[in-house]
Amino acid sequence: MGELAFIEDVLKGIRAYVLENYEKRRTIEVDEKAHANDVLTAVDLGVQERIVEKIRSKFPDDLILAEEGDLSVHPDSPPDRCWVIDPIDGTQNFLRGFFPAFGVTMAYIEKGESTAGGVILPVNGDLFLAERGGGASRNGEKIVVSDINDLQRARFDIDFDGPSLRKGTIEMTLKLMENVGQIRSYACAVIGFCQIAAGEEEGYIHLGLNPWDHAAGQVILEEAGGSISRLDGERLKPFDGKLGALASNGVIHEQLLVGLDQTAQVRS
Amino acid sequence: MGELAFIEDVLKGIRAYVLENYEKRRTIEVDEKAHANDVLTAVDLGVQERIVEKIRSKFPDDLILAEEGDLSVHPDSPPDRCWVIDPIDGTQNFLRGFFPAFGVTMAYIEKGESTAGGVILPVNGDLFLAERGGGASRNGEKIVVSDINDLQRARFDIDFDGPSLRKGTIEMTLKLMENVGQIRSYACAVIGFCQIAAGEEEGYIHLGLNPWDHAAGQVILEEAGGSISRLDGERLKPFDGKLGALASNGVIHEQLLVGLDQTAQVRS
Repeated sequence: MGELAFIEDVLKGIRAYVLENYEKRRTIEVDEKAHANDVLTAVDLGVQERIVEKIRSKFPDDLILAEEGDLSVHPDSPPDRCWVIDPIDGTQNFLRGFFPAFGVTMAYIEKGESTAGGVILPVNGDLFLAERGGGASRNGEKIVVSDINDLQRARFDIDFDGPSLRKGTIEMTLKLMENVGQIRSYACAVIGFCQIAAGEEEGYIHLGLNPWDHAAGQVILEEAGGSISRLDGERLKPFDGKLGALASNGVIHEQLLVGLDQTAQVRS
Repeated sequence: MGELAFIEDVLKGIRAYVLENYEKRRTIEVDEKAHANDVLTAVDLGVQERIVEKIRSKFPDDLILAEEGDLSVHPDSPPDRCWVIDPIDGTQNFLRGFFPAFGVTMAYIEKGESTAGGVILPVNGDLFLAERGGGASRNGEKIVVSDINDLQRARFDIDFDGPSLRKGTIEMTLKLMENVGQIRSYACAVIGFCQIAAGEEEGYIHLGLNPWDHAAGQVILEEAGGSISRLDGERLKPFDGKLGALASNGVIHEQLLVGLDQTAQVRS
């Protein structure tokens, strides 16, 4: 089994566990000490443990980078083979809100390049997969980005994050906010990347992404014809560290990029 | 059958028609001439016709006010009995996006007071109902607002609307945007009101609401313990005309209200 088939297998396998816990979400213990926008839930750790165990069993020599706990250390010099996991991207949406805007994501990084990735949206079961050079799919069907290249017709998904990145996000996107056709904020990186990949929106921005937030999204989005860059316009790399990123359908990328106020003061 | 039971009956009855069309949404004819943020769809008119027909058959003497076409004229002196309908609130979300953030809503207004109202979210079938003095429910179970009264823990749903209201919305909410715990933007009024009523978020703002956007939401939200006001703090009335409104869980209303920049230039 290759890496992509393994990702598919793992993500499909974890769905029932996530769903079971989502049903119980009213009673899940939330770590009150944690910052209100960085809530850890029991299920977050549970999902991670289960995925890590599967990777260690199948690919015992590979490095694993994941959002929670000891595995969240950015490597100085990552080895040739590395896996990155976000057990629940969108924990706040897991906890509250009508819409289950959260996903489980994992990616395989080879020689510093996001090579295969997957995202599952546990509630409806949508599974997004992509492998470098092989296109992107939702539930086995090829997906492509929209061809909207007019700001006034574009839907822009802004992730306002928590207080520390908030002011910078607003300052940086203010001009775009005034000029894009529609603004949405679902507050989940993998949902942003996958919605653009599937042609459902044109842009997504988040000022503080980690490798586990974007590694799978990047290969899915790029294989669907879209673009993802750092805020200076350079193409994103998996181990760039925590940073701001702009994702788009590609044809509108430059317009979004020049619409950003690069003088905005961003502290993370 | 009283008004509330009638509303329940009508909304349950319309669900299948909406769902059927939602499945076909990729091919639905969109009126390209319409403003990009005020798209009319065939289903919008179809839903309205069906609901209007039912009201006319059951309550032939009552006034009907509805979003589409000839029925969208605000009455100068509304009669004692009036119905307001929004066939699809959230047409843009009906057309695009992973999440079906749209609803069908209708309300019965008696002597200028929103007296009974309902909202159905067709995709998952959630039905919100309320009658003045009788509490609010989701699928028959009582709902109440959250007790969060701390801005930094609050989730604020900002409806940025289309270009004409955009600048005013940003200016008016800028300070709140910087200070609330979480920002979301689902871009659907009834979803905003119902999420607050069900305790899933604390605030919602929209600078250009019509009676059909808020009449049902108001009674549902108020009966769940929440508040809805004009932006000057006065309680909203169904026939105030097109106006800005702030909805909340009640306990945080004053903090949200004073956080608004009342000097913002709003043109509609």
